[in-house]
Amino acid sequence: MLAIGLMSGTSLDGVDAALVNIENERFELVKFVTLPYDESFKTRLSRNLNIETAKLNEISSLNFELGYQFVKAIDLLLQDSAYEYNDISFVASHGQTIWHDPKGTKCSSHVPSTLQIGEASIISYQTGIPTISNFRVMDVAAGGEGAPLVPFSEYVLFHSNTKNIVLQNIGGIGNLTYLKKNGTMKDVLSFDTGVGNVMIDYFVKKYFSKPYDKDGRIALQGNIIDEIILELMKDEFLQRKPPKSTGREQYSYVFMEELSQKLHFDAYDKKDIVTTITEFTARSIAYHYEHFLKDIDLVVVNGGGSHNRYLMKRLKEITHLEILTGEEFGINSDAKEAMAFAIMGYETINHRPSNVPSATGAKQDVILGNITLSPTKRK
Amino acid sequence: MLAIGLMSGTSLDGVDAALVNIENERFELVKFVTLPYDESFKTRLSRNLNIETAKLNEISSLNFELGYQFVKAIDLLLQDSAYEYNDISFVASHGQTIWHDPKGTKCSSHVPSTLQIGEASIISYQTGIPTISNFRVMDVAAGGEGAPLVPFSEYVLFHSNTKNIVLQNIGGIGNLTYLKKNGTMKDVLSFDTGVGNVMIDYFVKKYFSKPYDKDGRIALQGNIIDEIILELMKDEFLQRKPPKSTGREQYSYVFMEELSQKLHFDAYDKKDIVTTITEFTARSIAYHYEHFLKDIDLVVVNGGGSHNRYLMKRLKEITHLEILTGEEFGINSDAKEAMAFAIMGYETINHRPSNVPSATGAKQDVILGNITLSPTKRK
Repeated sequence: MLAIGLMSGTSLDGVDAALVNIENERFELVKFVTLPYDESFKTRLSRNLNIETAKLNEISSLNFELGYQFVKAIDLLLQDSAYEYNDISFVASHGQTIWHDPKGTKCSSHVPSTLQIGEASIISYQTGIPTISNFRVMDVAAGGEGAPLVPFSEYVLFHSNTKNIVLQNIGGIGNLTYLKKNGTMKDVLSFDTGVGNVMIDYFVKKYFSKPYDKDGRIALQGNIIDEIILELMKDEFLQRKPPKSTGREQYSYVFMEELSQKLHFDAYDKKDIVTTITEFTARSIAYHYEHFLKDIDLVVVNGGGSHNRYLMKRLKEITHLEILTGEEFGINSDAKEAMAFAIMGYETINHRPSNVPSATGAKQDVILGNITLSPTKRK
Repeated sequence: MLAIGLMSGTSLDGVDAALVNIENERFELVKFVTLPYDESFKTRLSRNLNIETAKLNEISSLNFELGYQFVKAIDLLLQDSAYEYNDISFVASHGQTIWHDPKGTKCSSHVPSTLQIGEASIISYQTGIPTISNFRVMDVAAGGEGAPLVPFSEYVLFHSNTKNIVLQNIGGIGNLTYLKKNGTMKDVLSFDTGVGNVMIDYFVKKYFSKPYDKDGRIALQGNIIDEIILELMKDEFLQRKPPKSTGREQYSYVFMEELSQKLHFDAYDKKDIVTTITEFTARSIAYHYEHFLKDIDLVVVNGGGSHNRYLMKRLKEITHLEILTGEEFGINSDAKEAMAFAIMGYETINHRPSNVPSATGAKQDVILGNITLSPTKRK
């Protein structure tokens, strides 16, 4: 059986698409592509993650537009492959989170909610492939944070009988999964570690007009500004006990502009700011290892942040742990999240739960997502 | 088999819930209730149908809050009945439309879209009943207007071998279904007839502080202002050829305030304004019979507007047709739409289409909605 997993993450880079072969309940990555968003689409998407600038008509339209983007990603994935739409048993799509308020603290109603867009009916109509989508909502309905969801697939793919493993992802937001040596699914811990690349990217774009700090080159040239680090480490999210989750919308443009004014970023060398923000990212990740985990044998870092040499170097220096990149460990780290949704989609069509309550805080394990059938008879 | 259909319509009155018995592909209404929204919820919902006042955090929250309202409606429906959650095979929920732009004219992207909220996972988690939802999106994905959807069930329930029947609904928005004598599903015509009660309700609330014009009492006391009628009949929607659809968001507070200023409503007697708006509603419905239908033997009027005696009287006088209320014809008109979704949900779980392309303009008939499974094993 072949399935496609689709993911559009907090970094808003584009659509990740993973073609996965499923045999005897084992999952193998066949092919992976990323369809980048063009700048104007990214700008519109980004505007609609923000409470001040989001517009109802844009949200409705972007839900459908993202559906078409996902179809383009599927086409790119199947192009030059041996397969066509009819060979694919199902698509499992995360969509794009545009709002995440699992504690209900961001609305006067105090009702927990989360909102993903990327219309499944567009995928299903255009390709004829049954589509599973909206994975996070059921976990929130069950009292969970609706995130992280990858721990399920991480346990399935990577748990070990000999090592306590931390799988650290550094995308826009950082998150980790702790797989206890010889543990079961119930022993899995997982939580967000706060900022990943989101702050680095913002200030690199602002000060150097680049989309991100390639290989950490800018950070490697600057110096740490101690008084700013001290202020940043007071971040409320750091202190909160896991399980916990956050989102890109927490680190909005408005938030970061206010922060930079409050801490007088303009008074410092711009390279030093990038170094300091990257240092803060490393320390906030390390803070979580020190305060909330014990017995770590190996840390495997995935996501865009694993290519930031300053970030990786500092993470090793601060923690004194064995730290590998996903590539070094043998994970296709770019494909990991998209593949995770294919695995969860497989559980859903088999009527099996795929949240990890110890990671999300849900009251129980539940079947995630909803199923949009192929709208017409498949060939 | 028992099913529950749920509907929250453009009039924002509350949740309609219909318990439907299904045997040998025949559908019988067992019980019907309406759970009214309280005023503060209605106000918040109403604010979030409007491009100027909708907020991302509220939309996300209201999606979940509506889910809980739907659960309350199910509880009210089953209370004092012989049935409990476990007896219900599925819930089919329309949700609440908060944006409808099937032509893509209301967004710079020009991508057709529609957006319903009322989170299915809340219904399914709280009750354990599999839930089918988001019926309109697939029809829009297939190039249709995503509305009207009731024609499918109207054909199933009411088509006749001896009469050409118009089923006219007058909710916030007016819409009709034309069932040709001896016709098939392909002969069904259906389209919106523009304003239903939405304008009447607005000005009755503004001038008389009442939620609606009960029995048309205010309209019966006033006089028609010809120069206003003339202006109103220039409405762009009237001229458009069917199939066509509109929505409450088209007749927003902003739109109606601008209209009342442009036509100097303040210069007239307030009763005359209500009479004139009601007259316009009757004439715009009659306009559609005259210009877009032929061979009508019977008109059956459902919805809140069927209780407006002025409206019904004028409709008869203008059209010279046999016009019955749903009650007179033997339809539980209040339950009709909620029941329609139970019927469409039944088609979906049986993997059968339930849109009517001749009514929505879709390129083909498609299976509607997505399925949220019971998240845990049912008892």
